[in-house]
Amino acid sequence: MDDQIALLFEETRAMHATAVETLLRGLLGDRPLDGEVTRPPRLMAAIRHGVLNGGKRLRPFLVMESAALFGLSGETPLRVAAALECIHCYSLIHDDLPAMDDDDLRRGQPTVHRAYDEATAILAGDALLTFAFDMLSDSRLLLSDTARLGLIAGLARAAGMGGMVGGQALDLEAARTNPGEDGVLTLQAMKTGALLRFACEAGAIMSGAREAERERLAEFGTAIGLAFQMADDLLDLTADAATVGKATGKDAGAGKATLVGLHSEGWARGQLAGLVRQAEELLQPFGADALMLRAAAHFIADRRS
Amino acid sequence: MDDQIALLFEETRAMHATAVETLLRGLLGDRPLDGEVTRPPRLMAAIRHGVLNGGKRLRPFLVMESAALFGLSGETPLRVAAALECIHCYSLIHDDLPAMDDDDLRRGQPTVHRAYDEATAILAGDALLTFAFDMLSDSRLLLSDTARLGLIAGLARAAGMGGMVGGQALDLEAARTNPGEDGVLTLQAMKTGALLRFACEAGAIMSGAREAERERLAEFGTAIGLAFQMADDLLDLTADAATVGKATGKDAGAGKATLVGLHSEGWARGQLAGLVRQAEELLQPFGADALMLRAAAHFIADRRS
Repeated sequence: MDDQIALLFEETRAMHATAVETLLRGLLGDRPLDGEVTRPPRLMAAIRHGVLNGGKRLRPFLVMESAALFGLSGETPLRVAAALECIHCYSLIHDDLPAMDDDDLRRGQPTVHRAYDEATAILAGDALLTFAFDMLSDSRLLLSDTARLGLIAGLARAAGMGGMVGGQALDLEAARTNPGEDGVLTLQAMKTGALLRFACEAGAIMSGAREAERERLAEFGTAIGLAFQMADDLLDLTADAATVGKATGKDAGAGKATLVGLHSEGWARGQLAGLVRQAEELLQPFGADALMLRAAAHFIADRRS
Repeated sequence: MDDQIALLFEETRAMHATAVETLLRGLLGDRPLDGEVTRPPRLMAAIRHGVLNGGKRLRPFLVMESAALFGLSGETPLRVAAALECIHCYSLIHDDLPAMDDDDLRRGQPTVHRAYDEATAILAGDALLTFAFDMLSDSRLLLSDTARLGLIAGLARAAGMGGMVGGQALDLEAARTNPGEDGVLTLQAMKTGALLRFACEAGAIMSGAREAERERLAEFGTAIGLAFQMADDLLDLTADAATVGKATGKDAGAGKATLVGLHSEGWARGQLAGLVRQAEELLQPFGADALMLRAAAHFIADRRS
């Protein structure tokens, strides 16, 4: 990716990340909202630990930029972006649990169950998952009722038993079931693909865009989801823990099937390049407006951590 | 409660329970819905184990009967009832986990993490929590968009960090923090009260009833929530595990503060009777239409398991 575009991408990503973190810091304070009884301080601290941890905020970026394609900016897409980030963060908190991936570190910091305790980590995840739907049904989200319900329906289906949660279940079984290439593709499409796909669709849902445009953005999301996973598998193979900020080499050690493992590093790099090309082609009709989404595809393929 | 009313209550409860279980059995099958990639069979089996276990379905009963007050019956309130039951069942699955209450039995059957494994139990809970919002945003719910969004907002707030999840967090801390009477009341209002309150409000939200009617039903829900907890604490004190179908005497053993423990059994029985009277008074304006909700208050106070 061109150096100047890379710089612009990085600035834009950082800007959206700051905005979403500011919003979430405000919403996840100790003070109860209307209709809440009280907010337990220790639970809230654990939630903030799991959310306000300097993540790249890739999903919020995709929501903001897919919204911008349809002329939407500001508080409303930001709230949608923050809701999606709550789902992503809850999934990380639960995936890190001893019963799941048993990780001590996340982005160089102790995971929530290490910093607090296991029960609090489970509840922090449950609370964040629930809060995502609270945010999307909030009347401060200035969208038509149809758009709000479309976002809730889309997010629930992407995140649930037939999407992200189901993908994590398949991933945990993978060491035992040894899924082939199709099986790995399915579990990745669910575990990481579904949320990225939803992030890219979100702008179209918010603006009530034509079905064809929504589908095109969803396909873009699918392509970058596959690229994301491929890059992740390559990172796990080649990077060291200090760079990535979490344990690496775990997949190979755990005997987890990855596409890189089923083929070769060279094959994977070729596939990754092909996915980026495919993602770029899908954005063609949006012309120059899609500059930042195009840059996101490159960022995902090239990332070093 | 009059024997004939008790019989009618039991028949009505069983009827709603069967209807909600039939609906959930259909929705929680292995076949993916539109927009889902696939449904992992083992995860789905764990979910069904946690849901289709012969629960009393008290919350669905309250949803159906509060809807009936406003002339609503059939598939639509049933779907709302089922969504709420998914939230209740997820909370039981997570509460039973080793890191939380560490229970092996639930309604006389192995808990989900005992029948499957801990990771699957965590994911089954996450999936059910997410699915509740899927159901409420589903277009098969024949309600106005405003009513659907009102249900989603109300359920999210009742179930989240300032409601049920926060209550469970406070309950886990209680052995260490030794909350006084106010603290116990707060945690109970969150842990069990919030969902029962929402169940009773649901009919008013669905039908777009006046705010005063919604508030009255919410207060009824609060009263029976308090009664429910009082009856639970009394049961824990006096019943044996075979009758209740789960471990008893645990609260006292774990040094958990309960109102019964802070006062006496006699005091608690007096309070319970007062709460039932209060609940009945709140239903007065609904006249004979509220017969089944009145019976529910008695059932909650008198239950033996």
